[in-house]
Amino acid sequence: MSDTSWPGAAPVAVSFTVDFDADVGMDWRKLDGRLTSTSEARFGAVRGVWRLLDLFAEKGIATTWYVPGEIATLWPDEVTALVAAGHEVGHHGHTHLFNDRVDPADQHVELDRGLEALGNVLGHAPRGYRSPGWELTPDTVELLVDRGFAFDSSCMGDDRPYLERSGPHAILELPVHWSLDDWVYYAFTRDGGGPMADPDALYRCWFREFESALAERRHVTYTLHPECSGRGYRSRTVSLLIDQMRASADVWFAPHGAVADLVEPGLDLAPA
Amino acid sequence: MSDTSWPGAAPVAVSFTVDFDADVGMDWRKLDGRLTSTSEARFGAVRGVWRLLDLFAEKGIATTWYVPGEIATLWPDEVTALVAAGHEVGHHGHTHLFNDRVDPADQHVELDRGLEALGNVLGHAPRGYRSPGWELTPDTVELLVDRGFAFDSSCMGDDRPYLERSGPHAILELPVHWSLDDWVYYAFTRDGGGPMADPDALYRCWFREFESALAERRHVTYTLHPECSGRGYRSRTVSLLIDQMRASADVWFAPHGAVADLVEPGLDLAPA
Amino acid sequence: MSDTSWPGAAPVAVSFTVDFDADVGMDWRKLDGRLTSTSEARFGAVRGVWRLLDLFAEKGIATTWYVPGEIATLWPDEVTALVAAGHEVGHHGHTHLFNDRVDPADQHVELDRGLEALGNVLGHAPRGYRSPGWELTPDTVELLVDRGFAFDSSCMGDDRPYLERSGPHAILELPVHWSLDDWVYYAFTRDGGGPMADPDALYRCWFREFESALAERRHVTYTLHPECSGRGYRSRTVSLLIDQMRASADVWFAPHGAVADLVEPGLDLAPA
Amino acid sequence: MSDTSWPGAAPVAVSFTVDFDADVGMDWRKLDGRLTSTSEARFGAVRGVWRLLDLFAEKGIATTWYVPGEIATLWPDEVTALVAAGHEVGHHGHTHLFNDRVDPADQHVELDRGLEALGNVLGHAPRGYRSPGWELTPDTVELLVDRGFAFDSSCMGDDRPYLERSGPHAILELPVHWSLDDWVYYAFTRDGGGPMADPDALYRCWFREFESALAERRHVTYTLHPECSGRGYRSRTVSLLIDQMRASADVWFAPHGAVADLVEPGLDLAPA
Repeated sequence: MSDTSWPGAAPVAVSFTVDFDADVGMDWRKLDGRLTSTSEARFGAVRGVWRLLDLFAEKGIATTWYVPGEIATLWPDEVTALVAAGHEVGHHGHTHLFNDRVDPADQHVELDRGLEALGNVLGHAPRGYRSPGWELTPDTVELLVDRGFAFDSSCMGDDRPYLERSGPHAILELPVHWSLDDWVYYAFTRDGGGPMADPDALYRCWFREFESALAERRHVTYTLHPECSGRGYRSRTVSLLIDQMRASADVWFAPHGAVADLVEPGLDLAPA
Repeated sequence: MSDTSWPGAAPVAVSFTVDFDADVGMDWRKLDGRLTSTSEARFGAVRGVWRLLDLFAEKGIATTWYVPGEIATLWPDEVTALVAAGHEVGHHGHTHLFNDRVDPADQHVELDRGLEALGNVLGHAPRGYRSPGWELTPDTVELLVDRGFAFDSSCMGDDRPYLERSGPHAILELPVHWSLDDWVYYAFTRDGGGPMADPDALYRCWFREFESALAERRHVTYTLHPECSGRGYRSRTVSLLIDQMRASADVWFAPHGAVADLVEPGLDLAPA
Repeated sequence: MSDTSWPGAAPVAVSFTVDFDADVGMDWRKLDGRLTSTSEARFGAVRGVWRLLDLFAEKGIATTWYVPGEIATLWPDEVTALVAAGHEVGHHGHTHLFNDRVDPADQHVELDRGLEALGNVLGHAPRGYRSPGWELTPDTVELLVDRGFAFDSSCMGDDRPYLERSGPHAILELPVHWSLDDWVYYAFTRDGGGPMADPDALYRCWFREFESALAERRHVTYTLHPECSGRGYRSRTVSLLIDQMRASADVWFAPHGAVADLVEPGLDLAPA
Repeated sequence: MSDTSWPGAAPVAVSFTVDFDADVGMDWRKLDGRLTSTSEARFGAVRGVWRLLDLFAEKGIATTWYVPGEIATLWPDEVTALVAAGHEVGHHGHTHLFNDRVDPADQHVELDRGLEALGNVLGHAPRGYRSPGWELTPDTVELLVDRGFAFDSSCMGDDRPYLERSGPHAILELPVHWSLDDWVYYAFTRDGGGPMADPDALYRCWFREFESALAERRHVTYTLHPECSGRGYRSRTVSLLIDQMRASADVWFAPHGAVADLVEPGLDLAPA
């Protein structure tokens, strides 16, 4: 057992993150003019964001929201509200283009347009980045380092913070995993289907990952989508999860920026 | 907590809806001449409809059935029986063509043929519409407004009644969601497969959505298909669901038309 | 409640059927020369058949096996053993070609070659037929009627015995359903994947369908595959299922031929 | 009941095997330059291998690791550590090419390069082989026999050791099955999705297969992947599984080589 502790002597650190995609990029997703599919995505902003904000307020937890730049234009009240509530905003592209499906020049434009749009809202540049669709390329890493991002959260090379390297470049990584993303369990489209999983299965996976993180005294990141976990019955699963975590241990719930601040000075994160 | 109440001072409103597709459109679905696939769809009319009608009669619940016009020709006794039992009939296309896969002219024909076929049965035009395959287009909304429909039930932009807008047009929407549709859990085809979900998983999702709706004093719509929930073992899940809802609260079970009547005059539907 | 009873005054009738496909047709399935995929299919004959025969012997249940003609050549000991144990043999094509994917002339050849191969084993023609891949065409029905088959078991138009009609032809149908076939839950291929379902989910669906059949005093057919339910852990689920059925009611377990004999003279099968 | 026993009079024999693929072959898998997908695979080596080694050390179990030759170059410390811990190393290709997708000449090269790379680490040739992607071809069997491999573990023709034959060649097979491979339950890619199964479902299937093997006094092989069961919450399921096996019976946990040594002299493996 290590004596490493997180702030407040907490034995475990948890970040809830939210990918606020909503109805950005309906045209390149070829859903333009499909009103039902568009409305399903829009639900995230109309209802899901507010339900999650209420939930986090009730629990007293600060989180990190990865937001495409165009969301700041389409849903300004929602972005203002989440900033006002003390949540962190990270960069999530501008129109949610997948980095591995566009050429480097377009990646450049997408990153800078997102920086401008979010900068206008925040009054400063976002410190963190998460790739739309969760796929970095070497070009992305070079761009992130060049633009001075403090951390990324798109890779899966470990289950605790590490340096993601690409050629001569490296960036602090606060890793994600498919199985810790609600999208994988809940997303459904008319054309492609989806698993439409039982929230109980998600709960069991996520809570046991918390138990593992607690046993290893490490940090763990969970990802929510407003159109997924922002639905009524699924938000109750997130609420239960937070309550059970607190009943099990003294948890340090923290946005990604706060974790990055601790890690960068060289903290011994957890026993390997 | 709001003091908004539904009729009878009920704190929650529930609509069960049925998409009565059966074996309409086997030709354009390319199942013409495939007798097993056709029989699987036909089961909905032969057995599923009657089992659901018995179930709703036993529970004393009025529901809304979205019916393609051609069903009125193919299965007249079934349509007569469901009307005689006091259920509402809504428009569900004529041959179940997907709106986003046909051109506007064909949408026009499909809508008007369905209106004529259902009008002949009902003696009046249906008031509500649900898109086959659940995808509206701007042309659909324009057609619905032009033909005087009172409401649609094909979109997912909120989890309480709202106005679905398209250009200058708007229509009252009684929203659906993929996860509140039994098709997503049960549908299976030889060529495409399907999840063949455990009814227990459906039960948990649907009952918890009811609990969420009750806590928020809102309206919720569930969708059944006769060839899915009309199978023996699955109808028992619907029966259990209704019983448990009633054991939890004083529920206002209502067809969509009755909900639309309340909403249109401007009732404060539920706390946002 | 009806006073209809099955033999022995049983309130419910259950047929277990087995589709003994094993490694027939590896060439047209394009698995020829793929040794692992072939071995996975062969398991059904090597181990699964014997495990199921032991299980049925232990429970004292006679069942119906639908067997492609070529199986009689490839696995003569297994076919001899199942006949000797008192199980019924039905026709399941010759090389397991899908009826809807071959032209009528090939259907003709496939049917007659199967008749010859199975006739040689049985000393008489099989009375029942089940389509490989579960898809009849109008040509199949015409061929079945012409060859004098007493019943088919490939369609899903009701959940009790009925007449499946095609043009001027009709045949007694002992219906199946995807959700009552173990293949849907367990089948997996390297190239196409599969659900790899928890046997507990299958158990719940199948036992509740039994409860529904018991309540409605009807007949129900379940389908097993030796390479699926013949695996060690899954055969235990079938064993448990049979035990629980017997603990719930006086069940008439019968092969399809015995059910057809009762139905053909015009027995009132069950309350509609 | 047979009086056959495994070493130590154990009534059942269990082999845990690990396919240590990690990030080998990213180029031919077309994931080269996709940093997130590459990092997900790399996790297996960075974290999963060590977590599994700790787990096996804690439980005192020797296992068999099937390792592509290139892994020995990419992850030498990990391969050294698993050898030092007493685990067996088997051949798993060199760059994880699928045998059925390359021509015979390339199979030849792939096999010999893997032999050389693993031979350099072990000081002797590996005795066992497992096909990358689990598909032998006749060419593979001929090559394995020619190179003197003692056993293969890629086929599914029985659920106890047997001879896999191809033309004039035969090799001792320690069989696998899709449902006893964690990959089938857990693997997920951005482009192809995946089931993302609840570990509880895997646990139930695997433990019941153990119960079946115990009842039949046979040998059973389970397969893990470091990037799957090496994740925190899933490793707990493996730990629980081992504990419950031991609580149920006196289990002989053995690597494949030890099983092959027993089988080759002609031991009566188990009652048929």
